[in-house]
Amino acid sequence: MLMQDTVSFDVTRNRLVLIDQTRLPGELKILSLHTIGEMEAAIYNLQVRGAPAIGVAAAIGLAVLARELDTNEEYDASLLAFADRLRATRPTAVNLAWALDRMLAGPHDPDSLANQALAIWREDIATCRRIGEHGSALLRDGDRVLTHCNAGRLAAVRYGTALAPIYIAAEQGKKIHVFADETRPLLQGARLTAYELSEAGIPVTLLCDNMAASLLRTGRIAAIFVGADRIARNGDAANKIGSLGLSIVARHYHVPFYVCAPFSTVDFDCGDGGGIPIEQRAPEEVTQTWYRERMAPAGIAVYNPAFDIIPNENIAAFVTERGVICPRDLSKQSPCNS
Amino acid sequence: MLMQDTVSFDVTRNRLVLIDQTRLPGELKILSLHTIGEMEAAIYNLQVRGAPAIGVAAAIGLAVLARELDTNEEYDASLLAFADRLRATRPTAVNLAWALDRMLAGPHDPDSLANQALAIWREDIATCRRIGEHGSALLRDGDRVLTHCNAGRLAAVRYGTALAPIYIAAEQGKKIHVFADETRPLLQGARLTAYELSEAGIPVTLLCDNMAASLLRTGRIAAIFVGADRIARNGDAANKIGSLGLSIVARHYHVPFYVCAPFSTVDFDCGDGGGIPIEQRAPEEVTQTWYRERMAPAGIAVYNPAFDIIPNENIAAFVTERGVICPRDLSKQSPCNS
Repeated sequence: MLMQDTVSFDVTRNRLVLIDQTRLPGELKILSLHTIGEMEAAIYNLQVRGAPAIGVAAAIGLAVLARELDTNEEYDASLLAFADRLRATRPTAVNLAWALDRMLAGPHDPDSLANQALAIWREDIATCRRIGEHGSALLRDGDRVLTHCNAGRLAAVRYGTALAPIYIAAEQGKKIHVFADETRPLLQGARLTAYELSEAGIPVTLLCDNMAASLLRTGRIAAIFVGADRIARNGDAANKIGSLGLSIVARHYHVPFYVCAPFSTVDFDCGDGGGIPIEQRAPEEVTQTWYRERMAPAGIAVYNPAFDIIPNENIAAFVTERGVICPRDLSKQSPCNS
Repeated sequence: MLMQDTVSFDVTRNRLVLIDQTRLPGELKILSLHTIGEMEAAIYNLQVRGAPAIGVAAAIGLAVLARELDTNEEYDASLLAFADRLRATRPTAVNLAWALDRMLAGPHDPDSLANQALAIWREDIATCRRIGEHGSALLRDGDRVLTHCNAGRLAAVRYGTALAPIYIAAEQGKKIHVFADETRPLLQGARLTAYELSEAGIPVTLLCDNMAASLLRTGRIAAIFVGADRIARNGDAANKIGSLGLSIVARHYHVPFYVCAPFSTVDFDCGDGGGIPIEQRAPEEVTQTWYRERMAPAGIAVYNPAFDIIPNENIAAFVTERGVICPRDLSKQSPCNS
């Protein structure tokens, strides 16, 4: 198990301390930040990512910035401007805005903000642990579960959300095998989930996102656990791209799809999923790599079938040199009237 | 449009000539092969890939090998051994076995084999063109279509299967916009489909496989066109990994899912999809990259939303620090009895 918390507050040196998640799994690099520019970049560039983690990072970041400011008449305007800049880094996860709102709801002096940031940090740990306790009750010894993206300890301070049930189940002596979607384009599943579970001694098998249907079809997966970035009042949930398709395939194969999140992820101002803003990110994330050759821990198990079987019921028609033919009439080669 | 055929027979120099598809989109490198070892490696390593293309390549390869053999008493045994080695390179696509069976069904002398290989090559071009004519009748001017992997001209001699309708529609003056799944792990969609459509002047937008559900949900996609590696008698079809999940999501959103293939792809000895062998490939394809930084043509359009909305109906429960809660009862926080 990693000993370093994902996000922490170095109160003595007045620094926001982060594990640089863009360097994993190759290198465990620790960042110590104290300027607004560094913090904005760290959140946008995903050096810290995961809805709970960016909320805690923004809270600690604002406290650090407050302690760096002169306490003159411009103090409050500067503080609010910093909060706005942090809030604007990423739009989808509600935790970022939630944490900043909570920071600004109380007194704005540096000491109060530092205490509030530490409270948010401590609560994240306790909340994730309770999520893990509730979620582990859904798991039986020997279960195989699938997860998407990284909603593990690297997405929060400790424990994580979707992986908290796995960590708690392991503490309780249950053997759980995790299948991890690699999660394109930025491969948080390959780089982060596979890494943190390996470090914790929990068996993990990596697969490409598009292999999940092939895996679920086998009936070997007991449940899917994912996190959430925002949950609407009606229960529609925003989570990493790929979650929608996975949820449809899970439903098709009757595999329960669990969303693990702190209750603060529910946005009661948002009626349904249509009201959740979706961040569009840079094309280069898809067209270029920055993780060079190795993008998963060495020696990791991999599920890598090259082909899928598409059931005939999902095929509108075969288009052949003999015409457009219905799937069920291949030998008759009858034309399709769909 | 590329002028070079994907697979061809240099009869004068007695060589199997291939576009090396592992070098695209960076470099258009042409391979000229005349030994069994080179041919096996070219097929297994996907320097030539796509069900129709590997069938044609195996046929031409066997003809080249026959012409290199001494016509002594060991000629026929050597020829059959070469055919067995070519057949064993990849198990799923039926076209490889189909082409070799057809080669061996006639006379085994070098001239007859060369003529048979040229006939298979010519028929592939004509067949794909007819697939394109039938498929383009399904398309209207202005349609947006989604494809997975590469079943374009780089998967056959010319035209391709799933992209043949696009090329023919373009000839007919229809404007079609293609969305191309990148197709992990080997990125045939990013490297090959995006490349060949760009070269042909057809607008193409690249997306990660896990973004297809988000795209189909918008209702902007008129149809999905994919190829097939083998089709069972009941119409179940084997195609590139990811096709199963895509077909389930397509059905969910009522987008027609068309499989484009030469009729020789139907394996009437195979009752249903359960009888089709699925190739398992090396873990390194998932854990490491060999295409370095740029994996798609420069300047390509990209669809890159960072999040999905998961509808509440697809969520078994929310696991929160307050317990396991039903999606529709978030404000009541009622425990879930699923």
